[in-house]
Amino acid sequence: MAHAPTATLSRRHRAVATELANRNLEALVVTSLPNILYLTNFTGSSAIVVLDKERLQFITDFRYVTAMSEMRGTAHECPALDLVTVDGSYDATLAAMLSARAGAIGFEAAHLTVSRHNWLTSTLAQSDRAPALVASEGIVERARLEKDAYELAALREGARRLSDVARGVFTEVRAGRTEREIAQAIDGRILAAGFSRPAFDTIVAAGPNSARPHAHPGERKLIESDLVVLDFGGVYDSYCVDLTRTVSVGRATERARDVYGAVLEAHDRAIATVAPGRSRFAIDLAARDVLAARGLGEAFGHGTGHGLGIEVHEEPRITRPIAGQERDADPDDDVSPGMVFTIEPGAYLAGWGGVRIEDDVLVTDNGVEVLTDVTTDLLEL
Amino acid sequence: MAHAPTATLSRRHRAVATELANRNLEALVVTSLPNILYLTNFTGSSAIVVLDKERLQFITDFRYVTAMSEMRGTAHECPALDLVTVDGSYDATLAAMLSARAGAIGFEAAHLTVSRHNWLTSTLAQSDRAPALVASEGIVERARLEKDAYELAALREGARRLSDVARGVFTEVRAGRTEREIAQAIDGRILAAGFSRPAFDTIVAAGPNSARPHAHPGERKLIESDLVVLDFGGVYDSYCVDLTRTVSVGRATERARDVYGAVLEAHDRAIATVAPGRSRFAIDLAARDVLAARGLGEAFGHGTGHGLGIEVHEEPRITRPIAGQERDADPDDDVSPGMVFTIEPGAYLAGWGGVRIEDDVLVTDNGVEVLTDVTTDLLEL
Repeated sequence: MAHAPTATLSRRHRAVATELANRNLEALVVTSLPNILYLTNFTGSSAIVVLDKERLQFITDFRYVTAMSEMRGTAHECPALDLVTVDGSYDATLAAMLSARAGAIGFEAAHLTVSRHNWLTSTLAQSDRAPALVASEGIVERARLEKDAYELAALREGARRLSDVARGVFTEVRAGRTEREIAQAIDGRILAAGFSRPAFDTIVAAGPNSARPHAHPGERKLIESDLVVLDFGGVYDSYCVDLTRTVSVGRATERARDVYGAVLEAHDRAIATVAPGRSRFAIDLAARDVLAARGLGEAFGHGTGHGLGIEVHEEPRITRPIAGQERDADPDDDVSPGMVFTIEPGAYLAGWGGVRIEDDVLVTDNGVEVLTDVTTDLLEL
Repeated sequence: MAHAPTATLSRRHRAVATELANRNLEALVVTSLPNILYLTNFTGSSAIVVLDKERLQFITDFRYVTAMSEMRGTAHECPALDLVTVDGSYDATLAAMLSARAGAIGFEAAHLTVSRHNWLTSTLAQSDRAPALVASEGIVERARLEKDAYELAALREGARRLSDVARGVFTEVRAGRTEREIAQAIDGRILAAGFSRPAFDTIVAAGPNSARPHAHPGERKLIESDLVVLDFGGVYDSYCVDLTRTVSVGRATERARDVYGAVLEAHDRAIATVAPGRSRFAIDLAARDVLAARGLGEAFGHGTGHGLGIEVHEEPRITRPIAGQERDADPDDDVSPGMVFTIEPGAYLAGWGGVRIEDDVLVTDNGVEVLTDVTTDLLEL
């Protein structure tokens, strides 16, 4: 597996340190594993990081100490690393380290449970010169919003491989096979293409099941004229890509062509709207307006897209604004170069079926680059 | 996919309602997805439940409303269900529902972030007769500790299938193949055996890499006399099973036989110690003492096992007691009939390699049943 170069990690640390200074924080306790991976190249399942402007304290246990220390001296070692082995428990080790500090220490309020926070607060209160814990939001996530060169290379290569997978997937679809059989074949193809794992539970939803945007593949056998939603993704070098196509088993019905055409137009219009300075709401609305004009407004109940990166659902969210806030133009809602997200409008008609078409896009300096590359024609298989 | 029968869900609801009464709580806000699945058969990725002694309010969004309402009238429908579609956001919907209640409402402090708790508390404070939110721990988890008949059937079948997978996996191991190739073959076999997905990232760690308990499969090619740790699991009807074998590529060295023999003896002694009323610490110690007596005490740095169920790591934890608490006999630390957990001692020697042997066991009325069934002889492949 590839890892971000040390110089890239240094740049990421500096971005976080700058934000800490803006917020008058001495350090940040990072408990989100995706954020920890972003800052350190650590891909294990348990660690806590305390980052300040000089060093990165990294708490992990026995299982991962060897792996982490073996990165030392390589081209992707984590800079300014203090490796700390868990003593007792993670939070006890963290509390002992924090009690040696003073001032205001941020913690990731969106990634620390009430239980752990209560325990930390009461434990630190027993120390003489304990720091103040300050609830913070989105510090590392903000740095992750615009992908750097290393991340873009991983996402581009992942999207290229996933597009290859999709072309193979089309050969798996035929009458008589079950949704579950096809889903297993897709997962096999994802692994064979060099992904470390599927990015989420693969969706194969046929006939009326395709009206459920997140259906589980079941024992339904495909029959002539079924629409089949195929939604799958992979994790390539820790980065997630995601793709959906809807195909017809044999000849598509007139209604299927009609709904498909509307969703495809929504998909194309949303992609054409992507450019630096456009708001994420405007991109969503571009898709939504097309479907509404075709009488499918109510049939499109989810957002148009979501960010891709270390997580398969991350910022930016390409959604409707919360009711009442439509007119508050906020530059934080604009997309900018380096952002990568999905465009995946759909239409779902209970009892009949559904259509979703999804690609992954990158905001460039002057527009958009579509990273996935698979036909959007309605295939009759 | 199979689901728990409605009568089983009713029993689970009653168990939680009894615990709520014991704690003087009017209701419980359930935010842990595994706990929600346990109470409702919901296998999606977003929902909140509010359970009281009369009904179960179930908040979910567009994507899952159809799936949930389609369970109505089936043999596995959730009893006493009030289906609520998200309006605005999950937490806004929850706050609106809670503001119509009074008294003390428990929330899962281990499964709610500080961010969400802060928002809920401040939003409820604006309501006239808002309830008090009370941090609660382990209410549903306690019910999940002892598996019911439905769960045991799923775990037994999963363990049987995973044992079949293991026998096939042995045919994949040979000199010249990479760890990654073997890991992909294992994942393919897991899916082909009817599991919905691997329960965790499959571990194939050969030669010196086997000294890392949680190594990622890499490009290392297997060579003669490598020890190879093969650790893999599957999710069968939402229940997780987990198995490890360590094999030798060709003839095992004398040292490999020696370390393997010590770990196997630790494994067997720990299993022989499992019985109702034995403490989880005593089971861990049975393995630990064997390894210490063979000079491998320092080489065994993790716990002896972990509970299995809807999560691949759950209670009970078969570990050392926290330092200083060794002598506090607490009946809560005893294992009891219906508990299912792994027994997986190991020995890891940096630079040389490691051995781990793992089976899944069930505590019965008078002893132990080993659910997995694969030879523990040191195979030379």
